[in-house]
Amino acid sequence: MSILVVGSVAYDTIRTPTGEVQDALGGSATYFSAAASFFAPVKIIAAIGDDFSREQLSFLGERGTDLDGLHMMPGKTFRWTGVYNENMNERQTVCTELNVFERFQPHLSEGETHTPLLFLANIDPDLQNRILDQVQGARLIMSNTIHLWIEKKRETFLSTLDRVTVLMINDSEARALTGEYNLLKAGRRILLFGPKAVLITKGDNGVLMVMKDSVFTLPAYPKEEVCDPTGAGDSFAGGFMGYAAQASALNEMTYRTAAVYGSIMASFTIEAFGVERLRDLTRQEIEKRYREFVEITRFQGG
Amino acid sequence: MSILVVGSVAYDTIRTPTGEVQDALGGSATYFSAAASFFAPVKIIAAIGDDFSREQLSFLGERGTDLDGLHMMPGKTFRWTGVYNENMNERQTVCTELNVFERFQPHLSEGETHTPLLFLANIDPDLQNRILDQVQGARLIMSNTIHLWIEKKRETFLSTLDRVTVLMINDSEARALTGEYNLLKAGRRILLFGPKAVLITKGDNGVLMVMKDSVFTLPAYPKEEVCDPTGAGDSFAGGFMGYAAQASALNEMTYRTAAVYGSIMASFTIEAFGVERLRDLTRQEIEKRYREFVEITRFQGG
Repeated sequence: MSILVVGSVAYDTIRTPTGEVQDALGGSATYFSAAASFFAPVKIIAAIGDDFSREQLSFLGERGTDLDGLHMMPGKTFRWTGVYNENMNERQTVCTELNVFERFQPHLSEGETHTPLLFLANIDPDLQNRILDQVQGARLIMSNTIHLWIEKKRETFLSTLDRVTVLMINDSEARALTGEYNLLKAGRRILLFGPKAVLITKGDNGVLMVMKDSVFTLPAYPKEEVCDPTGAGDSFAGGFMGYAAQASALNEMTYRTAAVYGSIMASFTIEAFGVERLRDLTRQEIEKRYREFVEITRFQGG
Repeated sequence: MSILVVGSVAYDTIRTPTGEVQDALGGSATYFSAAASFFAPVKIIAAIGDDFSREQLSFLGERGTDLDGLHMMPGKTFRWTGVYNENMNERQTVCTELNVFERFQPHLSEGETHTPLLFLANIDPDLQNRILDQVQGARLIMSNTIHLWIEKKRETFLSTLDRVTVLMINDSEARALTGEYNLLKAGRRILLFGPKAVLITKGDNGVLMVMKDSVFTLPAYPKEEVCDPTGAGDSFAGGFMGYAAQASALNEMTYRTAAVYGSIMASFTIEAFGVERLRDLTRQEIEKRYREFVEITRFQGG
């Protein structure tokens, strides 16, 4: 099955303790597709400015990603500038220029509205709703958000939740959304708004997935060296949706295994700046790390 | 096999957002024994003051714990007062009165020196060394420490490390000891001082065990309600050593499974103030939660 992703394609300027890049290819849709394209066909819906070189995405095209949904609009491409702290567990957004993204109002084609899998990246919840209005009969819809929308468009964001299957949200966002520090409580609280599953990502502390009748908890793949955490969440989403797209059934065990693939994809992304590591990655490396992950989490009966 | 534990028996005064207790039974050796005694015979070596009522430990005696190593000394029992913050992820020590513990210089009996398993709780590293001087042929020695010793007796503490099999240390202590924020790096750095394994506990984010040629990572058992986190680490150690004491071999897989039992025991301890939950707990409840833990961590191939 193929996956439709609506998100950003961006130029990122990033400084971490290990170095700095300027105007590197980034954006939620880019990371997502770079990760998901190892597993399934992906179609990107995003806006780019007239300063954007489509060639930068040719590595995605080579993996079967459909780039026809890239709307080139007059003006500049979305730009984000961020600086990470010494331990790379916090970052500061120095500058966000929405540029063409601000006027982006995608209309899905007939084929796109019938997509079996949809990922709504951390875009404006009003835009998420407008996409959801157009989609029919999707088997798995995952969405994501950021603090900005929780603060500025809380009600609108909450209104999207009974229209999605899985909400992916990080720990601090889950706490901000619910006022609950305990993540199991926060997850259960979010479930009341309608999603079937709440996937709480905790950076290098792994993932907690809360569903109505079950809980799943997973450590992160331990990494000694981190180069750039940017895009880890969207890469996680790409691994998750990618695995789900080619699974024989969409059930809880599929979501669990998908979360492992999500962790694996995030662990690759953070090894280099931007999407660099995902450019030359191979499915063989992914499967090798999956087996390694199974090994490092194994215990008696587990 | 039986386990010898050298640590504290204390009266704790604890305030958490859920309530408060005064002069509740506590201390590292108490929590450790309360957890380990479900699995194996334990002998406690500790000092108590003449204000201590041995009856408080009778529940341990009923589980086969040997209390003959409780040295009653003139003066008051060790007392600790602590206050937890709203989220119970940080605590402030309001007051520590070492009392009789300050003069505690245990001499092990002939039988005690040949203990197959030894747990050195977070006592003064000078005292840890003096115990290690007396012990011969132990098959598994685990130790623990606190920030105080890392700050005040760093070199002495480091000198204990090539005499122990497993160092159990929490994340912030591992970072303080090594200057490394990354816990995998911190664990590898600590390994250089001699222990076979470094078990880094991360509270509700689980455990990372680093050995020379392998890494093991485990999430925590997710809990919605926490009453009092006091003693979670020592209960973890008790579950770990208890499981190891009755395992057929002391190898890496045993340590991994032992870490799961450690997590399970900690998850019970935090359900009530002090050691209360461990008083009426049953082995059946422990095994039930173990199976539940297997279930909530299961994924394809894992």
